[in-house]
Amino acid sequence: MHMRFTSRTLADGVSENQFTLGDITGVLWLPEQATGQLPLILLGHGGGQDKQAPGVAHRARHYVTRCGFASAAIDAPGHGGRPPVPELKQHAEAIRERVAAGESLADQMPAYNELMARHALPEWHAVIAALRDTTEGGPLGYWGVSMAGALGVRLVAHAPAISAAVLGLVRADGLVAEAAAIKIPVQFLVQWDDEMVPRESALELFDALGSADKTLQASPGGHREVPRAEIESSALFFTRHLGQA
Amino acid sequence: MHMRFTSRTLADGVSENQFTLGDITGVLWLPEQATGQLPLILLGHGGGQDKQAPGVAHRARHYVTRCGFASAAIDAPGHGGRPPVPELKQHAEAIRERVAAGESLADQMPAYNELMARHALPEWHAVIAALRDTTEGGPLGYWGVSMAGALGVRLVAHAPAISAAVLGLVRADGLVAEAAAIKIPVQFLVQWDDEMVPRESALELFDALGSADKTLQASPGGHREVPRAEIESSALFFTRHLGQA
Repeated sequence: MHMRFTSRTLADGVSENQFTLGDITGVLWLPEQATGQLPLILLGHGGGQDKQAPGVAHRARHYVTRCGFASAAIDAPGHGGRPPVPELKQHAEAIRERVAAGESLADQMPAYNELMARHALPEWHAVIAALRDTTEGGPLGYWGVSMAGALGVRLVAHAPAISAAVLGLVRADGLVAEAAAIKIPVQFLVQWDDEMVPRESALELFDALGSADKTLQASPGGHREVPRAEIESSALFFTRHLGQA
Repeated sequence: MHMRFTSRTLADGVSENQFTLGDITGVLWLPEQATGQLPLILLGHGGGQDKQAPGVAHRARHYVTRCGFASAAIDAPGHGGRPPVPELKQHAEAIRERVAAGESLADQMPAYNELMARHALPEWHAVIAALRDTTEGGPLGYWGVSMAGALGVRLVAHAPAISAAVLGLVRADGLVAEAAAIKIPVQFLVQWDDEMVPRESALELFDALGSADKTLQASPGGHREVPRAEIESSALFFTRHLGQA
């Protein structure tokens, strides 16, 4: 597979570069004046979102303008403009029916996230290899919560190129062994009143992380209410571990 | 009571000003070139330490040099060069005997901390009033964990001048109602393997905090192993809430 850059736009000192790798669609954000080796933050998006969801694009630009890093996001399988993946679609429909019936979808999420990860992990590995050429092999970080947190635990446990990660908003089910295999520094986000992730299960997953350097960061509010200030503390965390650009 | 500055030393752009207020002994650290209104961070020290314990002085200098803030610490009653307070001394000796007998001292701490707070709170209120003249009434933050965390919960619940606090390493016993009265932003530190503070009790106290803006920050390790990086995240937190100097 060959990475193709299909368009480039410039705004506020940030260049936004659309790319494809096979049928994967992605974006690479770079400082306009970037040269040489750069730390690169890989950004996962939540279920139903895509590579350019407002939260993802805002975060990408923050890391570029405040830290001088590169950022990249890809559409998860079946997300953004990508074709549907039948088994993921079936699963997502089952979840929607449960929600419509007023049932909790919390118990469906681990199985959905596992299925998603099975499709998405090889794509991330391919994108990482291709992007490292573009950013000249600088250090890598990963940021992802919820669906991208469940994916992230599985990804960073087996991607030695990634040297720091922000993960969270995910329950422990099926992830304890993977979490124990993680040895890199982790900032782990918990929403104290998360309607999708029982508090005990989130704490269990933090407990399971094999990293000597790990911090639990918990804030009041529901699954979609991570406080704005988190973006600054993650920038501080990545700067500490990936170095100044 | 009149605040008297008794000595001033200059090193690395920081002036260190010893003061007394009645029989309270304290230090005020200032940027060498400070003029006008400055945010001021009040620093509490742990049991058995004093106003110039290495961790306290290092933190004070960090806030001065990195944030341009002022920092201040006072010796707790019976600590540093201050005369012993008989009932505190008795209590501390009972704790030492327990430790020597290999018993846990965890259960003794809440009562000791309450007694300490009864002596220390009026002193902090007096020092705050006197220091506000010196720093021209800039915004106030408080940092204190362990003994100074138990004191801090009681102090910031009833000191409207303090507008942001880092607290932690303290159990909930006797502090739930005070915590609920706190409405300012709080960063709450927990050591995940704290031998003095049961995890559940620390989480209960975080839960009880009345602040809309509160973050739990938990790290692996024991009571005395708060990671170094905490100083940076607290600087970010104070900068966000007290403004740039």
